[in-house]
Amino acid sequence: MNSILVRYGEIGLKGRNRGEFIKRLRSNIKECLKKEGISGRVERVGARLYVRTEEVEAALEALGRIFGIVSLSPVTHVPAGMEEMKAEALRVAREGGLTTGRSFRVRSRRVDKTFPIISPQIAASVGGFIKESTGSRVDLSGDADVTVEIEVLEGKALVYSRRIAGPGGLPLGCQGRAVALISGGIDSPVAAWMMMKRGCAVIPVHFSQSAEERQKMLDNCAILSRYAYGWELRPIIESHQEILSGTLRYLQEISAERWACIFCKRALIRRAAEIAREVGALAIIMGDSLGQVASQTLENIEVISQGVSIPVLRPLVGMDKTQIIDLAKEIGTFEVSTRESKSCPYLPRNPVTRADRAKFQAILARLGEGG
Amino acid sequence: MNSILVRYGEIGLKGRNRGEFIKRLRSNIKECLKKEGISGRVERVGARLYVRTEEVEAALEALGRIFGIVSLSPVTHVPAGMEEMKAEALRVAREGGLTTGRSFRVRSRRVDKTFPIISPQIAASVGGFIKESTGSRVDLSGDADVTVEIEVLEGKALVYSRRIAGPGGLPLGCQGRAVALISGGIDSPVAAWMMMKRGCAVIPVHFSQSAEERQKMLDNCAILSRYAYGWELRPIIESHQEILSGTLRYLQEISAERWACIFCKRALIRRAAEIAREVGALAIIMGDSLGQVASQTLENIEVISQGVSIPVLRPLVGMDKTQIIDLAKEIGTFEVSTRESKSCPYLPRNPVTRADRAKFQAILARLGEGG
Repeated sequence: MNSILVRYGEIGLKGRNRGEFIKRLRSNIKECLKKEGISGRVERVGARLYVRTEEVEAALEALGRIFGIVSLSPVTHVPAGMEEMKAEALRVAREGGLTTGRSFRVRSRRVDKTFPIISPQIAASVGGFIKESTGSRVDLSGDADVTVEIEVLEGKALVYSRRIAGPGGLPLGCQGRAVALISGGIDSPVAAWMMMKRGCAVIPVHFSQSAEERQKMLDNCAILSRYAYGWELRPIIESHQEILSGTLRYLQEISAERWACIFCKRALIRRAAEIAREVGALAIIMGDSLGQVASQTLENIEVISQGVSIPVLRPLVGMDKTQIIDLAKEIGTFEVSTRESKSCPYLPRNPVTRADRAKFQAILARLGEGG
Repeated sequence: MNSILVRYGEIGLKGRNRGEFIKRLRSNIKECLKKEGISGRVERVGARLYVRTEEVEAALEALGRIFGIVSLSPVTHVPAGMEEMKAEALRVAREGGLTTGRSFRVRSRRVDKTFPIISPQIAASVGGFIKESTGSRVDLSGDADVTVEIEVLEGKALVYSRRIAGPGGLPLGCQGRAVALISGGIDSPVAAWMMMKRGCAVIPVHFSQSAEERQKMLDNCAILSRYAYGWELRPIIESHQEILSGTLRYLQEISAERWACIFCKRALIRRAAEIAREVGALAIIMGDSLGQVASQTLENIEVISQGVSIPVLRPLVGMDKTQIIDLAKEIGTFEVSTRESKSCPYLPRNPVTRADRAKFQAILARLGEGG
């Protein structure tokens, strides 16, 4: 059985919450193996987690999407003797592509201080052996083609060279539920992903305007589901029309169509807050990025979220569009989000960009609502 | 007089708001030159902005901190003739460190389509000349040591090779005012910086617990001020003690000290909302990152911000601590933030991590407050 060392970062800092987080991470890893049909098991040894499996590559691919994991290394265990370490280090270096003329370095760490040879000597001795055996050269600058790492534990040694990055963050589900407003666009799936990364059990909510937009949202939820081990994304879809037709008709009657976007967004947040209450969610996640489009001004954000008592989390509020697009590409939602679809039929020609609070209140009063 | 080409990104996408943004960017650049004592002027040519100055290096250093600027290039203008372009391109390539054996590429763009030679031919011809003159080699892969760029405009050509990154974002001040709660820690100055980057005119607010923390906050505001061309950061400082002593004493009386952090943060946000109203700010900026410490849970965020009618922007809410630290180092606030200082004297041993809403309401009622 092969082993994969699972490194988790921030979790290590958490003091009292640590146990709970590791438990959640373990169970999400188990869920991942099960969902992907990979046979294997998770073991905890001291502060460390290992996945034991015969399907290393498939496991690495899937584990690389589990929130809370900082990095992964397929490792081998050998008895803690110099000859065993040398032989294994050579094998690992060759597997990592080390050939004549290429460069490498050996890093070693002696966790078991009773082992008689100190770390720099282990590295030097193993390095000398690899150099001789392969005709490669040592490069300690950090730019080496291959890095072989050795950790001497009690009675055995870990040898590895690959390090695959995980997404970081906190184990999904350890931070309670939140409702995420997801449209067919670029930003909202990224916002949902970021909060999933911070441990939120996300419930996608979509207010449907058109079949195309709804399908884009569903396709993006399927992509987000690839990161959602341990929590199932179950989209809640409601008709945009039903929530809004009355309001929009009224805005037309009083010639206040310019306010359509503001009253629309306001109605959707309020409905999302109701849904949150129904499903036991503690926050609403939105994809707002300040100033990105005309409607995302501080003035509009203020009037739109007025009277919403549940916290609104806007993880993209300080990000540039280029950063959001890069992240969407990395997550895999960009392509779906940029698929062509009709724009909103109610979009006014000249929407209000800096909502005046007094005017807003006046229209609100005429709409017969409180505030 | 030398020229620096100023590239602004997102602004270009803004349609109707474009004029306003460019105007703000220009005035912030002017303010920057004035504040740094650099003689020079800003010119708009079509959609482009140039800074004309004799002090190119000093200007690049300062302009590189102006929000809204994506990148900067010192450029030279020459008459649009092949010989002139060749000579200037060679000079620029040498200035950029091109010597025998090193690699380069030439990129060219013909904005003026009446120029008789097409772009690939310009690049080939200029490239051949540079290669012959320097003994260097052409590398079109994108990994070249030096890239020379030529843009043929009407009657003249722009030649340059350096490209210095700016911070991106939107011009400071174009998004209205927001109050930023800034402590002596790592996160809150980063949160304020991110919202400044998105155009917010930030008013720092500090609730002082100790002279050391206050000094750390002031030192960090001085660092943030280096990015604040066109808007002066004027910290508002109030006594933590004054706002809270009554509440904290009462929590002790009823043996609810575990709730100290929650009621403290709640009182500070409410005071910040009052200050926001007084100074005409439309939002409160906070450095919360979900799950980072025990108090930053969804449950706590919910009860803490209950009843606050002004939007709370939490640009770090979806970020990992490692990302926040990297950004703090880049901005320059990390060192001050990690300077030693006393921790809060009221920090309970075992603070409430997942605030129960009913218990919260019960304590609130006993405190004699509404909700």
